[in-house]
Amino acid sequence: MQNFTRTNFEHLEKVRNRSIRVARSCKDLRDRYDEREDGVYYLTTGNGMLYQTYCDMTTAGGGWTLVASVHENSVYGRCTVGDRWSSQQGSNADLPDGDGNWSNRNTFGTVESATADDFKNPGYYDITAEDMSVWHIPNNFPLEFWNMEAAAVLRYHTENRFLRLYGGNLFQLFKQYPVRYNVGSCGDRGPAIPIVYDHGDKESTRMLYGPNSRREFEPGFITFRAINWESAAMAICSGVKPTVGCNTEHYCIGGGGYFNPEEQCGDFPSFDYDRLGKEQGWSASKEMTEAAVLLFYR
Amino acid sequence: MQNFTRTNFEHLEKVRNRSIRVARSCKDLRDRYDEREDGVYYLTTGNGMLYQTYCDMTTAGGGWTLVASVHENSVYGRCTVGDRWSSQQGSNADLPDGDGNWSNRNTFGTVESATADDFKNPGYYDITAEDMSVWHIPNNFPLEFWNMEAAAVLRYHTENRFLRLYGGNLFQLFKQYPVRYNVGSCGDRGPAIPIVYDHGDKESTRMLYGPNSRREFEPGFITFRAINWESAAMAICSGVKPTVGCNTEHYCIGGGGYFNPEEQCGDFPSFDYDRLGKEQGWSASKEMTEAAVLLFYR
Amino acid sequence: MQNFTRTNFEHLEKVRNRSIRVARSCKDLRDRYDEREDGVYYLTTGNGMLYQTYCDMTTAGGGWTLVASVHENSVYGRCTVGDRWSSQQGSNADLPDGDGNWSNRNTFGTVESATADDFKNPGYYDITAEDMSVWHIPNNFPLEFWNMEAAAVLRYHTENRFLRLYGGNLFQLFKQYPVRYNVGSCGDRGPAIPIVYDHGDKESTRMLYGPNSRREFEPGFITFRAINWESAAMAICSGVKPTVGCNTEHYCIGGGGYFNPEEQCGDFPSFDYDRLGKEQGWSASKEMTEAAVLLFYR
Repeated sequence: MQNFTRTNFEHLEKVRNRSIRVARSCKDLRDRYDEREDGVYYLTTGNGMLYQTYCDMTTAGGGWTLVASVHENSVYGRCTVGDRWSSQQGSNADLPDGDGNWSNRNTFGTVESATADDFKNPGYYDITAEDMSVWHIPNNFPLEFWNMEAAAVLRYHTENRFLRLYGGNLFQLFKQYPVRYNVGSCGDRGPAIPIVYDHGDKESTRMLYGPNSRREFEPGFITFRAINWESAAMAICSGVKPTVGCNTEHYCIGGGGYFNPEEQCGDFPSFDYDRLGKEQGWSASKEMTEAAVLLFYR
Repeated sequence: MQNFTRTNFEHLEKVRNRSIRVARSCKDLRDRYDEREDGVYYLTTGNGMLYQTYCDMTTAGGGWTLVASVHENSVYGRCTVGDRWSSQQGSNADLPDGDGNWSNRNTFGTVESATADDFKNPGYYDITAEDMSVWHIPNNFPLEFWNMEAAAVLRYHTENRFLRLYGGNLFQLFKQYPVRYNVGSCGDRGPAIPIVYDHGDKESTRMLYGPNSRREFEPGFITFRAINWESAAMAICSGVKPTVGCNTEHYCIGGGGYFNPEEQCGDFPSFDYDRLGKEQGWSASKEMTEAAVLLFYR
Repeated sequence: MQNFTRTNFEHLEKVRNRSIRVARSCKDLRDRYDEREDGVYYLTTGNGMLYQTYCDMTTAGGGWTLVASVHENSVYGRCTVGDRWSSQQGSNADLPDGDGNWSNRNTFGTVESATADDFKNPGYYDITAEDMSVWHIPNNFPLEFWNMEAAAVLRYHTENRFLRLYGGNLFQLFKQYPVRYNVGSCGDRGPAIPIVYDHGDKESTRMLYGPNSRREFEPGFITFRAINWESAAMAICSGVKPTVGCNTEHYCIGGGGYFNPEEQCGDFPSFDYDRLGKEQGWSASKEMTEAAVLLFYR
């Protein structure tokens, strides 16, 4: 049972040697060292803190750094342990920001577990970027197969360099548009940015959310900081722009620390409203509900 | 107060130099680089993710990689914060798998805190192995003394290469035998593998569990995925094979997300049934209850 | 949008090269390699486990290692998720030590998030030191500006080498003076050590705590293991020595696992007693309540 073949060894040696690179993003690795292979690389922050993450060196020219994943560990949870992208303190109006991870420097998880648990690395706040790419990958899917296009439920990227207008990353963008309970009303949404599809299209995006939700949004966008009728804030509406109505808890992810009713509180706030993964009423599809949302910068 | 002597420095330099090795397991380090010393080494996953763990380079030929520890932070807890090997979401039949860490790629903890908190490193799912070794080490015991045989409450290993039949590691084995509430009944246990003792024997194993438990198991084995009368699943019965009766919550560890009654939910489910560490009725001994369970692969 | 300039690159290369040092503390780095710059460095434990932390190479001769930060994620929390320096298990007399992190080898957090979340690195238990330095830095303040003296709410260090008497670090000190509910009464305090101010003075220290608290303490000290009227234990009274009365929950931080009333349980136990950050009655000032407490050894 030889599990460490020569090929394996040579591959690992190559990966090990990558660690001598000094780069602050996958784009740096591509531009400066001409790295062209998807996989795990070392990066360092401006202060010299080292970490490992995944680089997509292929899509639309490559140079995409994985900085975070949003993973719903339990739609039955209500802002309980594991809801790091909303709150782990229970739905509580005294904590309008919840855990605050959309706009602080906390980090958690590892790159290889990014489809099995929440992940946030220092690149989230340290990299200055222009565009974003988003991959919805089924829960527990292994890293070595993430880049198979067919694996993804949905994949897209922006190309209008919108992050230039918002400080260069989500850490800065969400300072301007706080993910906070009671910060404004439904009309006070953040930017909605047009997307270019890498897997899926507008019609397939529509079908990923519940029939009732489909009446409320337009596909082909990524939207930041939505607010629902009950003044709860969400961070990202992936693939869509809310247009009519404000029931964004059924199709936007992440959140502040308070939702009413409290069973909506969580990383995928109320994707299971009319029954988990049944794609009826307001409920999102099973594939969407059981996929992690991987966020990349370039 | 010179705390950094020449010896100390030379030792650390040697350890630092180990970091240039490219190896995926302690067995690789022994076979490829002839490393013979117990201690902390770098390993890397197949994808190139780096981590540090402890290698036992001595027992029965050495080459054992520490991949996990199960530590009960509070037998009073009931699937609350810290119960990563069962559930941190409260006992909840809607979450039959609990945190799911027996069969996902999440990792947590550090090697030096493996006797003070739960630990799981990438080796758990990344290494392809044949045998296992288990050390029960008193809580908070420092790493530099783990290999003193007398330190252990119990130590043993398998030698029949059973992991070949189950995918090469626990990550794969528990896909075949899910640690999930209501997945089967008492008879649907996973494999029971004979063990070779490195510290302790069959009789001392018996005495580590409660008097009532002793009537239900046969010592000299490690058993995977036990199920009790109430359909709760446990992951490992360390040192024993259940034979008669199904009150496995008193002598098996880890679990799914639901136990009835709920006070049994936890990493050491109901080791304290008849009073904590009193070794009466169903209660396990104090030494067993207050020791971390270190899991090694080779 | 070039975010990776030549200067930036050279800085990162320099930081990268630091990683080849073999040192167990910032003092070693200063003494052995003549490192003089504040910032992030690699250190290694006696067992060879590697980690990154911040070195203050300036204050009073430099050589100070950041080993921990105490951050209050929510004064509304009551020993809930995030209260790692007291308990995450709820206020519970059955768990007198709470999470036990003052005297175990668990670690958590990263150096760059030390003002945004709790932080504890292996240096906490691994380094043998003589003195301590404490910085109160506003929450979410970025690492690159920590050393601006004006940034701090309060900064001081000891210079009498008191840690020599208590095992060389807090890990050992708190074995002698456990942070445990019901371990003694108000008079059984641990050592109170005189401090030298680096930012602030005795009068400014007084004003950081509530008007009622000011009648109970003398500024100009750091005190370890205080006990209040209700037998709850706290870990550190920063900047002060309790003298009259035992309402230490209003001005000391960290704790065991039980407080009565339970709403006092938490990392900053009852800093908000008479209203959060209002500096009235027993309530500490807003600046103190919203600052992380960074702990250094030398």
